[in-house]
Amino acid sequence: MTSTDPVKPVATSAEALDPVALATALIRAPSVTPQAQAALDIVADLLADAGYRVERLTFDTGGVPVVNLYARIGTDGPNLCFAGHVDVVPVGDAARWSHGPFSGEIAGGRLFGRGAVDMKGAVAAFLAAALRHGQPRKGSLSFLITGDEEGPALDGTVKVVEWLKAKGETLDHCVLGEPTNPAVLGEVFKIGRRGSLSGVVRVQGVQGHVAYPHLADNPVPRLVRLLSGLIAAPLDAGSAFFPPSNLELVSVDVGNTAFNVIPAEATGRFNVRFNDHFSLASLKADIRRRLDAAGEPYDLTFPPGASESFITAPGPFVDLVAGAVEAVTGRRPEASTSGGTSDARFIKDLCPVVEFGLVGQTMHKVDEATSVRDLQDLSTIYGEIITRYFAHFS
Amino acid sequence: MTSTDPVKPVATSAEALDPVALATALIRAPSVTPQAQAALDIVADLLADAGYRVERLTFDTGGVPVVNLYARIGTDGPNLCFAGHVDVVPVGDAARWSHGPFSGEIAGGRLFGRGAVDMKGAVAAFLAAALRHGQPRKGSLSFLITGDEEGPALDGTVKVVEWLKAKGETLDHCVLGEPTNPAVLGEVFKIGRRGSLSGVVRVQGVQGHVAYPHLADNPVPRLVRLLSGLIAAPLDAGSAFFPPSNLELVSVDVGNTAFNVIPAEATGRFNVRFNDHFSLASLKADIRRRLDAAGEPYDLTFPPGASESFITAPGPFVDLVAGAVEAVTGRRPEASTSGGTSDARFIKDLCPVVEFGLVGQTMHKVDEATSVRDLQDLSTIYGEIITRYFAHFS
Ligand SMILES: [Zn+2]
Ligand SMILES: [Zn+2]
Repeated sequence: MTSTDPVKPVATSAEALDPVALATALIRAPSVTPQAQAALDIVADLLADAGYRVERLTFDTGGVPVVNLYARIGTDGPNLCFAGHVDVVPVGDAARWSHGPFSGEIAGGRLFGRGAVDMKGAVAAFLAAALRHGQPRKGSLSFLITGDEEGPALDGTVKVVEWLKAKGETLDHCVLGEPTNPAVLGEVFKIGRRGSLSGVVRVQGVQGHVAYPHLADNPVPRLVRLLSGLIAAPLDAGSAFFPPSNLELVSVDVGNTAFNVIPAEATGRFNVRFNDHFSLASLKADIRRRLDAAGEPYDLTFPPGASESFITAPGPFVDLVAGAVEAVTGRRPEASTSGGTSDARFIKDLCPVVEFGLVGQTMHKVDEATSVRDLQDLSTIYGEIITRYFAHFS
Repeated sequence: MTSTDPVKPVATSAEALDPVALATALIRAPSVTPQAQAALDIVADLLADAGYRVERLTFDTGGVPVVNLYARIGTDGPNLCFAGHVDVVPVGDAARWSHGPFSGEIAGGRLFGRGAVDMKGAVAAFLAAALRHGQPRKGSLSFLITGDEEGPALDGTVKVVEWLKAKGETLDHCVLGEPTNPAVLGEVFKIGRRGSLSGVVRVQGVQGHVAYPHLADNPVPRLVRLLSGLIAAPLDAGSAFFPPSNLELVSVDVGNTAFNVIPAEATGRFNVRFNDHFSLASLKADIRRRLDAAGEPYDLTFPPGASESFITAPGPFVDLVAGAVEAVTGRRPEASTSGGTSDARFIKDLCPVVEFGLVGQTMHKVDEATSVRDLQDLSTIYGEIITRYFAHFS
C-alpha cells in the first residue's frame, strides 16, 4: 500500500496502517516520563482523523502536568479498550547505544529505540489494527493511553480510571499492551497480577552506652527477632493461578557508626508480592500476627502504593485472546500472573483485563529493540482479537 | 596552714598540700582533650619542686601533639604509681552551667567545673597526699599522667606504657583515679575491667527487583538469620569476679529506600564486653562458631581498639586499698569489674592495678561537681594507701 495523501508530518494514513512506520514515528517523538506530549499527540491526531472522540486528560497531582488520552469510536456496547503508555524510561548512557535511542533505526530486522518494546511498539501495533478494522458494526473500540506509567504513576491510568468511573463510561473488556513474552512472541500472556504491599517496622529503644546496657534499651536485637518471625514461614504455597506469595526484606537501618553506643531506633523495610490467598486487609493482619508473635513492641506502617492482586478468570475473553495469539504464532500462550505490577491493577476495577505485548528482553535496557517481524505479527494478533471480539461479544 | 612563700602563680606550697586548692587550680587551667598542656604543667612543676624526676613525653600519632608525664621520686622498689589524666571532655552548652565550667567555684559544699570528678579532683587528691608523704624511706612513688584519655587515646597511656617498657622501668602496683563510686564515696573500687571487642558482619547478595526474587539474592534475610544466631544464647553466666559477658548489636545497615529493589549488601555491627571466660582469640572463635551455625556465607572483620579483660586478683594489695577506704569512710568498698574500659587496660601489662576515685554521678555532664568533703576524704584515703603500702611492701 502506498500513500497518496502525504499531508501529516509524522504519519500518513498509509503509515497509520503500518505498525512499523507508526512505531518509528512514536520512537522519534521523545517522551521520557512524564513528558509524553509529543508522542501522545501523534496518537490523538490519528484517532481523531479516524473518527474517534478524543479526550485529552491532564492531571497534576505530582507537580508536573501529565497528559493522558481516552478515545472511543462507537456509542454502544460492548466496548473493547486497548490500554497502554507512550512515556518511556530514561535512556541511560546514550553513548552505549549502538543506534540512537530516539533514532527509530532498523538494523538486522530489529527496530531500535527507547520504547520499541515498552511499549510504543504495542501502541503502534494496536493503533494500526484498530484503524484497519474501522468502527465496529455494533459495539465500540477505545484507547486509554497514559503518559505516566514509568514514573510515580500518580497522574496516569489511576486518574483516567477515576474520570471514566465518574463519567459512567463503560469498558467491557481491556487488552493492555505491556511486554509479556520472555523470549518468543506468543509464549505468555498475563491474566492477573500479584498484589504489592510495602511495610516499615520501627522499633524504639533507649540510647545508651554498651558498657551499661541495663541503662539502655537496645532496639536492634528486637528488630532482628521481629524480622526473624516475619520471614520464618512461607506466606502460602501458591494458588490455582498464582505462584506463592513472597515477602522480601529490602532494608534494615540504624545508621549508628559508634561501636560503644546503643542506638535509640531501628527500622526494617519489606515488600510483599501476594496472590489471591490474601486481600490487602488479610495480609496486613497476617503480618501483624507474625510480628506480634515475637512479643516485642513495634510500630508498623504501610507506605502508599499498595495494590490488591487480581485475576481475570479463565472464560470466553481469556480464551479468545489465547486463540488469537495461537492463530498467528502457532503457540498457545501460557496464562501467567508472574512479574511486577502494571496499570492493569487500576483497569481491573472497570472490566476484565488481559495483557499481551512484545518480547520484553531489552525493555529498560541500552539498545532496546523489537523484532520488526514481531511487531507486524503483534498487530495481526491485535487485529484478530478485535475481529473475534466483535464476532463473539456483539 | 598558711602560705609564707607565695612565689608560684597557680599553687603555693601550702596549696599543694590542699587537694581542694589544687583541684581548683587544675580546673582553672582549661584542658579539653587533648590540649592538656596547661594543666599538665601545674602537675609537672609541683612534682619537680618536690624532688621528683619529671619526664614530659610528647607523642603525635593522631596528628596533634599530646603531652604526657611520668615522674618518680626514689630509685628502689617497690614503686607505687598513681595514674590519671588531666584532659577533660568538652563542656557542652556552657550557658547551661550554673557555675562556669572552668571557674572552679565552690557553692553549697561542692566544687564545680569540668574535670572536678573526672578526674582533676583525684589527681589533686593524690598529688596532695604524695607531697604530704614525701619521699618513701624505702621504695618509690611515681605519677603517670596523660593528656589523652578522653579522646582517641592513641598518644596517651598506651604510649607511655610502651616507653616505660622500653626503658625497663618497673612499676610494682598502680592506683588509677577514675571515678568509681556510683553515689557515695567508699562504695565501690574496681579490680578489673571487662574486655571489649567490636565486629562487623557483611553479607553480599545480588541486587534485583522484588518481583523477580529468583534473579536476585537478598542479603537482608541472611543477615537477620546470622544475627539471630549471634544473639540466641548468652555468651556465659559470669565468673567469680565478673558479670556475664554481653554482646550488643549496635547497628544494622542497608540504606535501601526503594521498596521494589532487593539490595546487594547488608551489614551488622556489634560490640562485646567480655569477662575472663574469654580471651580475644577465644571470643572471636566463639563468634565465628555462632555465625557459622546459620549456614550463610558472611564476611567478619574486627575494627581496631579491641582489648583483653583483666583482673587484679584479690590479695594483699587489693585488701590494702579496700582497708584504706574503709578506714576513712567506714564503708568496705565492693570490688567491681563493671563499666566501660579505662587506661587500666594498658597499665595492667606493667603491674597490678586497682581503681578508686570520686563519685561519678556528674561526670561528662553539665554542672560537673564534686563534694569538697569527698575530695578531702579521697586525699586522706590516698595518703592512707601510701602509708600502708610502704609499711607492707617495703
Ligand atoms: Zn511498560
Ligand atoms: Zn576519666
